[in-house]
Order: sequence, then structure tokens, then C-alpha cells
Amino acid sequence: MKKHNYSAGPCILPQEVFQEASQAILNFNDSGLSILEISHRSADFVSVMEEARELALELLGLQNKGYKALFLQGGASMQFLMVAYNLLEKKAAYLNTGTWSTKAIKEAKLFGELDEVASSKDKNFNYIPKGYKIPSDADYFHCTSNNTIFGTQIKDFPETDIPLVCDMSSDIFSREMDFSKFDLIYAGAQKNMGPAGTTLVVVKEDILGKVSRQIPSMMDYKVHIGKDSMFNTPAVYAVYVSMLTLRWIKAKGGIKAMEERNAAKAKLLYDEIDRNSMFEGYAAVEDRSPMNATFNLKSDTHKETFDKMWKEANINGLNGHRSVGGYRASMYNALPLESVQVLVDTMKEFEKKSGK
Amino acid sequence: MKKHNYSAGPCILPQEVFQEASQAILNFNDSGLSILEISHRSADFVSVMEEARELALELLGLQNKGYKALFLQGGASMQFLMVAYNLLEKKAAYLNTGTWSTKAIKEAKLFGELDEVASSKDKNFNYIPKGYKIPSDADYFHCTSNNTIFGTQIKDFPETDIPLVCDMSSDIFSREMDFSKFDLIYAGAQKNMGPAGTTLVVVKEDILGKVSRQIPSMMDYKVHIGKDSMFNTPAVYAVYVSMLTLRWIKAKGGIKAMEERNAAKAKLLYDEIDRNSMFEGYAAVEDRSPMNATFNLKSDTHKETFDKMWKEANINGLNGHRSVGGYRASMYNALPLESVQVLVDTMKEFEKKSGK
Repeated sequence: MKKHNYSAGPCILPQEVFQEASQAILNFNDSGLSILEISHRSADFVSVMEEARELALELLGLQNKGYKALFLQGGASMQFLMVAYNLLEKKAAYLNTGTWSTKAIKEAKLFGELDEVASSKDKNFNYIPKGYKIPSDADYFHCTSNNTIFGTQIKDFPETDIPLVCDMSSDIFSREMDFSKFDLIYAGAQKNMGPAGTTLVVVKEDILGKVSRQIPSMMDYKVHIGKDSMFNTPAVYAVYVSMLTLRWIKAKGGIKAMEERNAAKAKLLYDEIDRNSMFEGYAAVEDRSPMNATFNLKSDTHKETFDKMWKEANINGLNGHRSVGGYRASMYNALPLESVQVLVDTMKEFEKKSGK
Repeated sequence: MKKHNYSAGPCILPQEVFQEASQAILNFNDSGLSILEISHRSADFVSVMEEARELALELLGLQNKGYKALFLQGGASMQFLMVAYNLLEKKAAYLNTGTWSTKAIKEAKLFGELDEVASSKDKNFNYIPKGYKIPSDADYFHCTSNNTIFGTQIKDFPETDIPLVCDMSSDIFSREMDFSKFDLIYAGAQKNMGPAGTTLVVVKEDILGKVSRQIPSMMDYKVHIGKDSMFNTPAVYAVYVSMLTLRWIKAKGGIKAMEERNAAKAKLLYDEIDRNSMFEGYAAVEDRSPMNATFNLKSDTHKETFDKMWKEANINGLNGHRSVGGYRASMYNALPLESVQVLVDTMKEFEKKSGK
């Protein structure tokens, strides 16, 4: 029996993608070869890489607008470093909305002056700071669109004349937006886009080449762009499964359709969190993430009972991150509404059983 | 019909590994979940990572000798950079035996003074320089054990008192050696060890922490060691398939058994290259690599005929690298002797057909 997989990432991907991805390990494109044993320079794989890059730009509405898409290695953590290597000449502005922003700030500090324009650390990152000022003399402004651990999401991005850089690891391809307001977007694949092991970088070319330092080849976006994201052997299989997932998103109706699916799931769960007398939400209501719903028991008296109940309901990965405790339901694109219904039913049943 | 896969990397892996790797995409460890959708912090995956790291040390005979094994991202090209970041304080010594050494030297130059102790560039890298001197005041000595493109291999490594660093991407786990003479070994997985997307680093801990620069977290071996190779989300699937391949190597009898397999394949092919009137070897005989045999037609008159013949024999990936031309037969651990026999038979038949 298939589980209801709420893992925060790596996380659920479409079942159709798993089927095709499994088959390609045995016989890729009817070549008689596994996708794991073919050259990354073979026509078959070059076409996978090209399709993945094109689909990423197409779904984001960024084709023919001066952007390039890359599939690199090292996760968002490597981008914390690469962003600063490529863009930070003197000073950068960062918004601190949680663990990942904090790490991005730490790495960038090695390259220049850091202006932390605002932080929600005072309330353990349960909200998104607003009304902050972005210094116009900074080289770029960096923010994290969705905070997996705390369950918050930026709804309105600031207007600024300096380059806008965004870590969208946990909500890319999940909601419609004018992506052309961003100059650099990066995202570890392992949420809405694919398996762990590759990271999408979408960068507007004209912001590059402006720092005076010498950039090592592997850190240099221009080097990767110049080699069509194949400067060295890419993470072949992770790119392939990402391509399959991007194809699935497109076939289902693109980001618009994903946003509708995600909104329905989020409404179902947040309504129950607010209604159910046993639970309370963690994040500020206006900043709630449709991707990661964080919630706690009002009292831990019946924690064991609830934990037993959701595990028996075949739910997986509901435990909250240690920085927040309680529960976290990650509802990425591929999670079906039915899985959320199972969780909501379990919460209702728990209230009936253990509530006053 | 299964192909005879001579790809230079990514390359053939054991068929048993493909079977298990394909199954795990649908249902990993009977969990009802795909290995692509589980948390990297789950007990099931943590145990994969631990087993992969342990197996690597065990097969190399480096357990309990002060070494740590890491599975990182970015390929050997990222190691060109990380080695210098972590070890190069003032001056480093490099041996230049081909394309990869040249690239390693280029990246390291950003971090300090480079002493290229010897180079075989004068003869398009068709031999391994010998009798060079390693400066005793260098921070480390770096070499490439096997040169995939040119088909050469270092048979005797130099004795030196400074740390010995080796890029073993294309021959790790293929031959017996006293690996404890090395202080840092790295290898992209995509030859003898697994699919593209992860890189093994085996490092003696006591050589670390001696440079004065601040190292970004993702570049810092100590950071990765401190987090048991899980500082951030690792390349889950690539590590898993590497673990399966390392299990296979162990089950087959370890590196000793691999060396015997590889020696038999290399003898079969090189004997034919030397015997056959149509071909000549590229690399100096004493430096020939058992992993990658490079050879050319003595005359290109019948090139089309030979190319047609090997393709009809279901042979894949035999074209030489553009820097050398001709042919390259990569015979990594998982390539069966039968595949080499098919190639040798094809060469014989070609001689009969087109030879004088």
C-alpha cells in the first residue's frame, strides 16, 4: 500500500515519473543501455539536458528574456557560495527568514560586507519581516522565498533597482509569479522538481562578469553557461528525473495548475488546523506556506496517541524539524489531495478520541 | 541484445546493480517508498551512506588508519578546487600527465604558487614522466593516477615526505596498492564506482586545518567530516548506486579480484593491438593503462569499414577522444571479458577483410 509521503525533501515525486525513471535504469530510450552507463556527451543525454533547461525557462515564463538555466551540483548550499563569488564586490543585502537565509548570510560574509536588512529571528522565524529598506548601493538583494523548516513564505517580493536573488528551493514551480523580476533564482531539485543531486540556477546573463575577483571555474556561472551546463560531467540521473518531473508539470497544465492543486491542499489542511481544538498553527497566518504547514499540539498529553494514529494511517515524514517541534506537513506539487484528506481525517478522529 | 559498452565514463556498471537500482526507484527496502522520495536523514538512507563510506575504506585497506571517506558533489573538477582551498598555503607541486592534471593545475594556481615538476605535454601526453624531483618545501604533491583520454597510468608512485594527493577518478578500486601512502585520494564515481553525480574523497584527517585562509563551508573537508558527509542533502541516489557497486566489488573478491579481471582484459586487447597489422597503440608500452586502451588505425583507408563492423558487433563508445583520435576501449571493472573478446574478434575479422 502506497504511503502518504509528507517528507520535507527529498520528497514525493509523481508516480508516473518513478515508473519511467525505474525503466530507464534498465533500458534508456530503447538503446539497450542503462541511463547510468551512457556518456553525458551522447546525443541521448545532451537532449535530456537541453530539454530540462528549456522546460525550466518555459515554465517560469523566462524564455528569450536574457536568462540561462543551469543544472549544477552541490545543492542550495553551494549556491550560497556561488552567488557571493559571482556577484558580491563590496556589499550585499540579505533578508533573514530562517535557517537557510542564515546559512546563506554566513557564507556570503567571506566575500564582502553584509547588510542584514531585517530578520524574524526574534520570534524563531515564525513570520516574514515587512517594511524593511533595501540599500540602493548594495550589489544585490538576497531572500529565501519559502522557509521549509518554519513554514513561512514570502507573498510579496520587494521592489528594488538592484539585482534580486532568490533561493526558491522549496517552492519553485508551485505558484504563479512574474519571475522576470528576479535576476537570479536557484533551487535544489529535491522538492518540487526532482531527486536530490542537482540544483537549478536561472540567471540573467547581464548581471554577471561585474566582480573584480578571479572566480574558480566550477564557481563561475559564466563558465557553466559557456559549456551549456556541461563544463564537467553533470549529475546525469538527477537531471533526467528532473526533466521527467518538469514534463509532468507541463502536461498537468504548468505552474498555474500546480498553484491550484497546492491551494486546495493548503486550504484543506490549514482549515483543519484552525478548526481542530487539539492543534495550533506555528507560522503567522498571513505568511503561511502552502508547501510546508507547521503545527503543534496544544498539549502534549496525547502526543503518543496522535503519533500512533498517523503512522497507522500510512502517513510518512510528519515529524516537525527540531527547531520548531510538533508537526510539519510538506505538500509539494506531487502530493495528491487524497493524502491531505487522510491526514485531515486522522486529525478529526484524534480530536474525537482524545479531545475533551 | 545487451551492448558491449566501452564508454569512458559514465560507463558500464554491473548488471546486478542495475537490477537492484531500478527496483529501489519503485520500492526501496520494502518501505513502500521510492529511494528518490525518502529523507536523507531517514534511518534507511543514513545506513546507505555509512555503508558506502565504510566499504570504500575497507576495500582500500584504510580502516582505522586515520582516514575519513566522504561522498561529495561536483565531480573531480570540484576537487581540483577543494584540494587547493584546504591544503595550499604557499606552494604546491603538480605532475602534469594530461587534460585533467592541466585543469587541476589551472584551478590551484588561484590559491598559491604552482611548481609543475614534470609534464608529458611534449608528446601529447602519451607517456608518464619519470625521474622528476618533488620539492620538499611544497605543501603537497598532486598527480593523476590514470589518464582516461590518453590511456596512460602511473605504475610507480614517487616517495615523498610531503602529503601525497591523487586523482584516481578513472582507476580507483581497479588495482591493488598500498593506499596508505596517499594522504588524499579523490575520484568521481562514474567509472569503477557508480553513476555520475557523486565523488569519493578519502582523506587523512591530520593533513587538514593547516592553511590560514577561511574556507567556505561547502569547500571545507573538515565541515563535511564533522557532519558524516551529510552537511547538506547529499546526492542520495548516486551514493546508493555507488554503495551497491562497492558491495559488488567486495562480493566478487575485492580489489585483488578486480585487478585480475582487469589484467586479463587488458592483456587480451593489448596483445591484439600489438599483433594486428592494422592497428598501433597510442600510449608508451610501459605506461599503458588497463582501464583505457588507446589505439589508432595505421592508415585511415579502411576506417569506415572498421567503424561499421564494431557498431554491427553491438559495441558502444569506442571512438577516441578528440585530443587523440582513433579508438579508446575503456575496460572498467564491470566490463566482462566476453565484451573484450567480441572487440578482439572484430579487429581480427577486420584485418582479414581489409588487410593486405
